[in-house]
Amino acid sequence: MAPPVKNAVRAAAAPTEEWSSQPEVTAAHPPKNAAGDGDRRPISTVLIIIAMQTEALPLVNKFHLSEDIDGSLFPKGVPWVRYHGIYKELHINLVWTGKDSILVEFSKFGCVLAGVDSIGTISASLVSYASIQALKPDLIINAGTAGGFKAKGACVADVYLVSNVAFHDRRIPIHVNYLYGIGARQTFSTPNLIDELNLKVGKLSTGDSLDMSPQDEVLILANDAVVKDMEGAAVAYVADLLSVPAIFIKAVTNTVDGQKSIAEEFLQNLIAVCTTLAQTVSQVVDFISGVYQIIGIRKSTSVYRKLYINTDEYYILKIMYQFA
Amino acid sequence: MAPPVKNAVRAAAAPTEEWSSQPEVTAAHPPKNAAGDGDRRPISTVLIIIAMQTEALPLVNKFHLSEDIDGSLFPKGVPWVRYHGIYKELHINLVWTGKDSILVEFSKFGCVLAGVDSIGTISASLVSYASIQALKPDLIINAGTAGGFKAKGACVADVYLVSNVAFHDRRIPIHVNYLYGIGARQTFSTPNLIDELNLKVGKLSTGDSLDMSPQDEVLILANDAVVKDMEGAAVAYVADLLSVPAIFIKAVTNTVDGQKSIAEEFLQNLIAVCTTLAQTVSQVVDFISGVYQIIGIRKSTSVYRKLYINTDEYYILKIMYQFA
Repeated sequence: MAPPVKNAVRAAAAPTEEWSSQPEVTAAHPPKNAAGDGDRRPISTVLIIIAMQTEALPLVNKFHLSEDIDGSLFPKGVPWVRYHGIYKELHINLVWTGKDSILVEFSKFGCVLAGVDSIGTISASLVSYASIQALKPDLIINAGTAGGFKAKGACVADVYLVSNVAFHDRRIPIHVNYLYGIGARQTFSTPNLIDELNLKVGKLSTGDSLDMSPQDEVLILANDAVVKDMEGAAVAYVADLLSVPAIFIKAVTNTVDGQKSIAEEFLQNLIAVCTTLAQTVSQVVDFISGVYQIIGIRKSTSVYRKLYINTDEYYILKIMYQFA
Repeated sequence: MAPPVKNAVRAAAAPTEEWSSQPEVTAAHPPKNAAGDGDRRPISTVLIIIAMQTEALPLVNKFHLSEDIDGSLFPKGVPWVRYHGIYKELHINLVWTGKDSILVEFSKFGCVLAGVDSIGTISASLVSYASIQALKPDLIINAGTAGGFKAKGACVADVYLVSNVAFHDRRIPIHVNYLYGIGARQTFSTPNLIDELNLKVGKLSTGDSLDMSPQDEVLILANDAVVKDMEGAAVAYVADLLSVPAIFIKAVTNTVDGQKSIAEEFLQNLIAVCTTLAQTVSQVVDFISGVYQIIGIRKSTSVYRKLYINTDEYYILKIMYQFA
């Protein structure tokens, strides 16, 4: 087994007819008129997936996006909202998972109600699937807020580009089912983006709770996570199934291992951190504009890396044997 | 607030043009040639959603279903498998979430590998969404195995028809977000089916772990669950979004509050219990054949009921105030 080629530009494999693999964003911006290169094309359609309205609106404003009013993109009944527009020759689609309709009805009983964002892995995976099917994006950006681990160097308002994702609340202690539950994946590699924007890089652990139970903590540590969110690994799972490259930008609203209440610190910092998040996403989109992609890296290669050629291996196998 | 009309046939509301609500399966089998009744039509397409191959195969055999070989129903890359056929004039579609591809690649390193079923809420919600879009079913049956609570009277090999679903591993302790996380729903009411087949009825709690952490246990108790699975509430969420009536049939492989290891007992009883599950699902399908549905019950009415007019109200609000 070769060591991982980290922070290095991987050579492109032979082009294939099929879209059987994740395309690779090249490190450099090749000339747009690069001729005779059938397997290269510029990134054209970008899909930004966001779970909260507060996270979405600064980006809608930044890119001057319009809301999709006719609602024909998604089936009737789903709360998902698409904003779209052209920005630096890129077709930008921002899809927000929308407000939950059950709790809108709740207000008829006179309870205080602002509507509830459809956060978490189920909505994120559904909206990823439906948006990929409808929009055929070249690249997905999952942007959002996250909790950060002080012990790993994360501070409030830090913005991370995620190198790896995994789940921490899917414990299936039966043989290799355990690995499926953890669902560890290396994300799409963008070393030059990291260098150019001088982004912090770290691993993300995803679960459906805002708080952290002792069982969650064990797996978050095992996942070696510096940030913790409620959607990332679900978006990565769907993007991987449908072979769309995805990157994950997570801004820290609160520390998970600090003294303060997670919910309080989250609410206190949410709006300011969403502005910072939007700035970074905007810089990432500026970088992406004009970047070419090369199709042909075998998907399985990166899948091996995800599972084996990093420190996760030790932890995951250790946990597996503890339970199985 | 009126008390819930339980185990009673609800009157049909005025028919509407739009499919804005869940249809109601009538208690009796009306004559198939019932004339002048534009808002009634027999159930024609049934979608059975299943997470494990071991759960699926007895039903594939029972209904003599064929595997969809051309694979055009779902996009390339997803592991979902559709079996279909005609049984007693019903178009039966059984969709199994399939084997996870990452762990198939795992075998190249020489590890023991049987392939891993794509269990849990993300796969279940995705396959529900994609199958509803592709097949436009009149009714969904989510069939599967579950853990049962001895303290609530559940025994191994019992088969339950689920009255209510909720999640137990989505803790979002910020005001009403908590209710969104719990996602409590009353399932589609089928009192005559219960009476005719003499089925046990109980509440289901869903989470992405096979085991049960102390935090899960608190919420499972709050959800008043007699059975615990890894998919039900996710299927219910998608079915509700897209206004397709769904029923849930769960067969107990193991007790969750017993002395034995959950994983061991689950594996020990899986095959036998799946045979029992298939028998019950087959009886349910026999009952459904020829049943008429009435379109027009306002969805919001049942949404109120789900949240307020039952004992869940007390528990859910109690939890909310504990955390918020």
